[in-house]
Amino acid sequence: MSNQNRVDALVAPKGSLEMLSQDEIYRLSEKSDSLHDLFHRCALAILNCGSDSDDPEAMMDEFDDFEISIIQQERGVKLQLRNAPASAFVDGKMINSVREMLFSVLRDIIFSQHEYILDRGLEHASSDKLTNVVFELLRNANVFRRMQTPDMVVCWGGHSIKRHEYDYTKRVGHELGLRELNICTGCGPGAMKGPMKGAAIAHAKQHIKNGVYLGLTEPGIIAAESPNPIVNQLVILPDIEKRLEAFVRAGHGIIVFPGGAGTAEEILYILGILLHPKNADIPFPLVFSGPKESADYFEQIHAFIGDVLGEEAQSKYRIIVDDEVEVARVMKQGMEAVRQYRKEHKDAFYYNWKLHIPEEFQRPFEPTHERVRQLNLHFDQEVHLLAADLRRAFSSIVAGNVKAQGVACIKEFGPFEIDGDKSLLAKLDALLEAFVAQQRMKLPGTAYVPCYKVITE
Amino acid sequence: MSNQNRVDALVAPKGSLEMLSQDEIYRLSEKSDSLHDLFHRCALAILNCGSDSDDPEAMMDEFDDFEISIIQQERGVKLQLRNAPASAFVDGKMINSVREMLFSVLRDIIFSQHEYILDRGLEHASSDKLTNVVFELLRNANVFRRMQTPDMVVCWGGHSIKRHEYDYTKRVGHELGLRELNICTGCGPGAMKGPMKGAAIAHAKQHIKNGVYLGLTEPGIIAAESPNPIVNQLVILPDIEKRLEAFVRAGHGIIVFPGGAGTAEEILYILGILLHPKNADIPFPLVFSGPKESADYFEQIHAFIGDVLGEEAQSKYRIIVDDEVEVARVMKQGMEAVRQYRKEHKDAFYYNWKLHIPEEFQRPFEPTHERVRQLNLHFDQEVHLLAADLRRAFSSIVAGNVKAQGVACIKEFGPFEIDGDKSLLAKLDALLEAFVAQQRMKLPGTAYVPCYKVITE
Amino acid sequence: MSNQNRVDALVAPKGSLEMLSQDEIYRLSEKSDSLHDLFHRCALAILNCGSDSDDPEAMMDEFDDFEISIIQQERGVKLQLRNAPASAFVDGKMINSVREMLFSVLRDIIFSQHEYILDRGLEHASSDKLTNVVFELLRNANVFRRMQTPDMVVCWGGHSIKRHEYDYTKRVGHELGLRELNICTGCGPGAMKGPMKGAAIAHAKQHIKNGVYLGLTEPGIIAAESPNPIVNQLVILPDIEKRLEAFVRAGHGIIVFPGGAGTAEEILYILGILLHPKNADIPFPLVFSGPKESADYFEQIHAFIGDVLGEEAQSKYRIIVDDEVEVARVMKQGMEAVRQYRKEHKDAFYYNWKLHIPEEFQRPFEPTHERVRQLNLHFDQEVHLLAADLRRAFSSIVAGNVKAQGVACIKEFGPFEIDGDKSLLAKLDALLEAFVAQQRMKLPGTAYVPCYKVITE
Amino acid sequence: MSNQNRVDALVAPKGSLEMLSQDEIYRLSEKSDSLHDLFHRCALAILNCGSDSDDPEAMMDEFDDFEISIIQQERGVKLQLRNAPASAFVDGKMINSVREMLFSVLRDIIFSQHEYILDRGLEHASSDKLTNVVFELLRNANVFRRMQTPDMVVCWGGHSIKRHEYDYTKRVGHELGLRELNICTGCGPGAMKGPMKGAAIAHAKQHIKNGVYLGLTEPGIIAAESPNPIVNQLVILPDIEKRLEAFVRAGHGIIVFPGGAGTAEEILYILGILLHPKNADIPFPLVFSGPKESADYFEQIHAFIGDVLGEEAQSKYRIIVDDEVEVARVMKQGMEAVRQYRKEHKDAFYYNWKLHIPEEFQRPFEPTHERVRQLNLHFDQEVHLLAADLRRAFSSIVAGNVKAQGVACIKEFGPFEIDGDKSLLAKLDALLEAFVAQQRMKLPGTAYVPCYKVITE
Repeated sequence: MSNQNRVDALVAPKGSLEMLSQDEIYRLSEKSDSLHDLFHRCALAILNCGSDSDDPEAMMDEFDDFEISIIQQERGVKLQLRNAPASAFVDGKMINSVREMLFSVLRDIIFSQHEYILDRGLEHASSDKLTNVVFELLRNANVFRRMQTPDMVVCWGGHSIKRHEYDYTKRVGHELGLRELNICTGCGPGAMKGPMKGAAIAHAKQHIKNGVYLGLTEPGIIAAESPNPIVNQLVILPDIEKRLEAFVRAGHGIIVFPGGAGTAEEILYILGILLHPKNADIPFPLVFSGPKESADYFEQIHAFIGDVLGEEAQSKYRIIVDDEVEVARVMKQGMEAVRQYRKEHKDAFYYNWKLHIPEEFQRPFEPTHERVRQLNLHFDQEVHLLAADLRRAFSSIVAGNVKAQGVACIKEFGPFEIDGDKSLLAKLDALLEAFVAQQRMKLPGTAYVPCYKVITE
Repeated sequence: MSNQNRVDALVAPKGSLEMLSQDEIYRLSEKSDSLHDLFHRCALAILNCGSDSDDPEAMMDEFDDFEISIIQQERGVKLQLRNAPASAFVDGKMINSVREMLFSVLRDIIFSQHEYILDRGLEHASSDKLTNVVFELLRNANVFRRMQTPDMVVCWGGHSIKRHEYDYTKRVGHELGLRELNICTGCGPGAMKGPMKGAAIAHAKQHIKNGVYLGLTEPGIIAAESPNPIVNQLVILPDIEKRLEAFVRAGHGIIVFPGGAGTAEEILYILGILLHPKNADIPFPLVFSGPKESADYFEQIHAFIGDVLGEEAQSKYRIIVDDEVEVARVMKQGMEAVRQYRKEHKDAFYYNWKLHIPEEFQRPFEPTHERVRQLNLHFDQEVHLLAADLRRAFSSIVAGNVKAQGVACIKEFGPFEIDGDKSLLAKLDALLEAFVAQQRMKLPGTAYVPCYKVITE
Repeated sequence: MSNQNRVDALVAPKGSLEMLSQDEIYRLSEKSDSLHDLFHRCALAILNCGSDSDDPEAMMDEFDDFEISIIQQERGVKLQLRNAPASAFVDGKMINSVREMLFSVLRDIIFSQHEYILDRGLEHASSDKLTNVVFELLRNANVFRRMQTPDMVVCWGGHSIKRHEYDYTKRVGHELGLRELNICTGCGPGAMKGPMKGAAIAHAKQHIKNGVYLGLTEPGIIAAESPNPIVNQLVILPDIEKRLEAFVRAGHGIIVFPGGAGTAEEILYILGILLHPKNADIPFPLVFSGPKESADYFEQIHAFIGDVLGEEAQSKYRIIVDDEVEVARVMKQGMEAVRQYRKEHKDAFYYNWKLHIPEEFQRPFEPTHERVRQLNLHFDQEVHLLAADLRRAFSSIVAGNVKAQGVACIKEFGPFEIDGDKSLLAKLDALLEAFVAQQRMKLPGTAYVPCYKVITE
Repeated sequence: MSNQNRVDALVAPKGSLEMLSQDEIYRLSEKSDSLHDLFHRCALAILNCGSDSDDPEAMMDEFDDFEISIIQQERGVKLQLRNAPASAFVDGKMINSVREMLFSVLRDIIFSQHEYILDRGLEHASSDKLTNVVFELLRNANVFRRMQTPDMVVCWGGHSIKRHEYDYTKRVGHELGLRELNICTGCGPGAMKGPMKGAAIAHAKQHIKNGVYLGLTEPGIIAAESPNPIVNQLVILPDIEKRLEAFVRAGHGIIVFPGGAGTAEEILYILGILLHPKNADIPFPLVFSGPKESADYFEQIHAFIGDVLGEEAQSKYRIIVDDEVEVARVMKQGMEAVRQYRKEHKDAFYYNWKLHIPEEFQRPFEPTHERVRQLNLHFDQEVHLLAADLRRAFSSIVAGNVKAQGVACIKEFGPFEIDGDKSLLAKLDALLEAFVAQQRMKLPGTAYVPCYKVITE
């Protein structure tokens, strides 16, 4: 076997997070400890940044001889890597961004596992407590900056998009960056990378040296959506629900680019929240945008939202086609509205405490065939609750597509069965079929086998 | 009543620690919560930095109308002060160092209370666990730097010292600073301030902009030894035992200047540790030094150590009289030995993991009449255990002199009674009398009434 | 006339160069002073950064109502602009890079005019003196950094190149940036912009915050090749000869991308110098590179060099087709050779003092019909002298194409006549015709009318 | 002879000024060049920073084997020192401040000699031109900062002052520093050092990392008043007149501490300027201050000013005795007045362009017996002209006391003879005698032999 695509390395970070206690080193070093396994998987995903695959299993197979361990040294801890993917290196030297991200993983695993999951448990935590937990996770990751004015634009959209869509996300990022705005995405490829790249060039032109390219990910998805190296702040949240909460509380506005099931999940999440009566007055800039070729795509989404959530839901966002300058201006102006509101209500710039997130959107939903079947997809309920269960339906499809646990589930028991109101399901099915047809479910290359079955009759 | 010595102010920090969760704000704001009271007392001590008193009760009385509360604002939290001591302000504007220290208190109270005391309890923690806790407290306070070589010199000595002694500590600090060494002290006046002042001037000459003046204190003593404003890193450890462990693990060498009971406690602490067989090979530069007028003082200490702990104990330190250049050179050379050792043993520069601290020196000792009477002050035991109980005896005297709880104890039940081997006690009594005669027990101004009684017959 | 493409603004720089003496302000403010006119023209070129034209006259016509003046204020001088091109602004706010470049122009005009041209005169200066002048111009522009190792890659190539060529220059820049190399170009569009853009993204990935994108230009060309805003260090050299000397003394290696007459001038300049016997041992990495579609182009150049300058000239460079990683590696390795040589010969990293530049390459050549006709384009001379006159021939064509003075000359008297050895001229003519056919002479859009006539018979 | 007080060293600076052209290196290296000699003398003075002598001749004799030369290296030039005074080193390593000052000397000598004295000549320069020259010298030294508000307090006073006077200057500096003001002095010992030391401590308390301690000196005096190492910006002006102009244009207010002939020269300089009708409206905070023991001293000065310059002159300053807080407050408030004025009149914060300095105060005065005798010390002239010649009289005494040229002059021809109006001279003589009696003329140690003779009858 050739080792051309393997590198061994000993790496140290530049920051200060490498000061681990003996306790922490011990736990992360014990191969039997679940922390070690989690760290090993996330680290490999980070290192695999040059990959063109969204198949986590394939990655684990390809690099099954990868090893990572922690070495205590006089100036802090270092990471010892064996058989790491060569794509993280340039002429044998690790790319700095990748290196820092490795240590971000270390930091977040130590903090979140140490503090919450294992030692305390959050199962019975209140909604307020969960919001405080997300805050503490972000604070521990040094994500909070003192800023003069809100400036963080979240960009959502698919990891598998077409070239002209990708180029458009770059142009939007460039216009955002020229307006001194920062970017936050799910940190994978496609619509998660383009805006950062555009903004990086624009920040260079504006001589902004501390531009922020914030990536929010989760252990379940990181392998399928390896963080792109422009990300300069990476946070690993424990699950998709906390990740989504982090997006909407740390971001000040959202642009949705074309995407598949994950993007639909995100749209339903934010609409469900904005539709809650308590949030009626909170300004939250929300734009759906794509190049002119994507006009139809957004028409379809827009119609679906109108059909299932109603007109009010449609009033929460604006669709802008093929006009990156207008998108950036709407965001910039939206930032000003957010600023005014936060000042008046003495809310922090760096964390949207005032936004009410119903518990239904906070509680972790781990899809099983049983749970998916029990989703309440009928019209006779409050609209934000319907949005919540629709969000869960899409979340299940994402899991079945690319998350290790979900993929395993599907492999064993066949596709998830989604049931409910038939008129609603018909529209859902049509939307999903369009995603499939447009190759938005998975990176192109293989034929897509649906992990779900919509029970339309 | 005149309000000339009172100031109201709203202050924000420069760092990033002001990002509090709603949880934290709530607890610190509830006057009924013990956290609020602790924060109130420590904050007042910090603000009282211009005081010439070491009487915490007097301070609390003088500023009984002082109030502090936390205000959430768009750029982070601020502190609202009412009737704060004017000495913390220059023409109505708070001195930056004082302001930062206020937020250090906030940080440490949140972290230590939140993490340890209340939620977990450390009563049954192992020795290793306690060492990890001290590490985490210091790490959370951002005390750990990546350094090229060990450079942190701990300076111990009395808060109540004579002018020529104080000037000498400045000269030593100047020579240390010229050699690019940093300073760590208990952060009060006297020998805790002089070395920092001298080093600050020397660092200016060396164009060192990030010189470290680290103050380690505890809630119990902070009121009596208000941190001097040259301190640019302040950590509040929960008790004297963790504070002492922080000194010896974060520092790389120690200089002991003249002092009273507290200094004696420190000497016994470090000697007790260095005398432990496991530490026999660990380099630890330790120098006792003072101006020529203090030669007798150190003779007396040296004799006492010889008498009660023996010759080996005497071999652990070097006495240098009136030669600040020699003191600085010994420290500088000692740093090199420490560097070599840490490199060889892969120990961190920023935390002395290898040093063994017996449990007897780690467990919090809260002096009561009962406990003081039961101290084992006899020769028929291992020498490091005798040192441990002698340390506790001095610790009790410090508490009785200046710590609120200790002072209250004495007020109610009279002096602590110290009993044990009579020949040993005779020497102890003589030493203590000398401290009293030299006005080392309390700041001059009032007649010193001993809080202890040595049962010499 | 609409004013949509005009902006008025008052701008201040971030640096410290805005501290002008009353003398300097006076001279730059007097419209009658030649300094004012020079400043006005260069400033307009900088502001016109979004232009797609390389026609300076058109620019001057379009913005004939543009005004710039200097305002003294309490924190330094500011620039008052009226009717400035809107492309320099984002929503009415000037792009920071453009703003800083305006002040670079101010700095360089003050320095070079003040110090050299007017007050002293350099007409009779020695070769050494001229080299010192270039040094002082670069030093005054703060171009010299203390660097650990040589890292400055000069990228030459046309302003008018095809899309796939442009994309290739970006890819090369990206690979250079990943290897922590910096970029220096003539700072216009095309091959002068692509490498900077690629490197900017790569530097973001490497967390390099002080990446250098150095643009070297001259008053004569700046209007035709408006600096791209990624440039973060801009120097205006007084003429093309000093600009070329700045390239080869401040750069550590050169990559030549496809281009037209200007690129040919640059190739002849560097080959002429490297062919001088005194430079035989000086390492100077030199690579010609382009995408696979450009393979023919370099074949043609290579053949021409072989024909007129001989095989030794061909040995001075390496041609690499469509392999950006290889190009970057050759440069990185070349840097190491340069480092070794400079260390051994105690030459500065930041300025190549040891390179001998014959006077023929240093003396300003201002093309007139007379002077062009007198160029010695025969084989019976030292090869570096033939290179020098060939360089002047191409320089004349550049001037006739895009420099205001040259263009005016051609307008009045018709094309320059290039005469000499007929076999040499035949090859020259063929090369030039290829440039024309490939649209490398001017930006596409209008039919190219040659400004020269090669007297081939 | 022992070499204990000698060190050889090769030193490099941290800044960027070490990039010298071959021209510059050549001239500074040629021992026959006057530049080399000037550099050698000034460098020795800087290195002799630990000296307690104000006798330049003695210094030159003691270190007659001192050598300095310039070495070109790959990362810039270095200085090679042989037999340098050991006081500039700590354990063989040069103090950073001293090292930076060495390179400041290099920078200023190159700039001022290169630009002005040799190449151009300033003999016939206009008053405006001289003001521009001082501006350019300061700009080249990077003295100009962009500041939010005027903050530079000039402290004048003797190099030979008593301990309690010195302590008072430290206390004043401390109060200035607490108010975030910066310090500018003549950079020698005594009143030139104390305020910087006090401010350095206060800046540490205020966490000000870029506090400015600006020293302005001249080649003639630097040997007698070796810069103290707290100075972090050093400028060598060519002569006392430009140095004085630099003080009043770069400073925003002046505090005069007790001193001797030099201090009297400074007082007459600033009063002469402020008395000029053109300056009537310009705010210029001016305070004379000392500890309570110095009350008499200022009474005497005050009376002398009243007698010779009149009541208006007395209205230009305020005398504050023994109240450092009040002094600092007056300065702080004065800064606000200066700020207002500069804003209204669009004058720069960093250079007082509006202040009119009559030519009589600008033209270099090199004292000779002839010139001193011809000073016009009579009442029948404009008061600012009388101040100008009185300034010259004191300047001559300073020269005769400590400047090499003046001392040589006196040695050869005996004391300067000061003649004029007898009533005026009587008061002058009394003042000078008081200076002598109070040991303000020279550092104590030897009996002071007057270098002047006042012709009182």
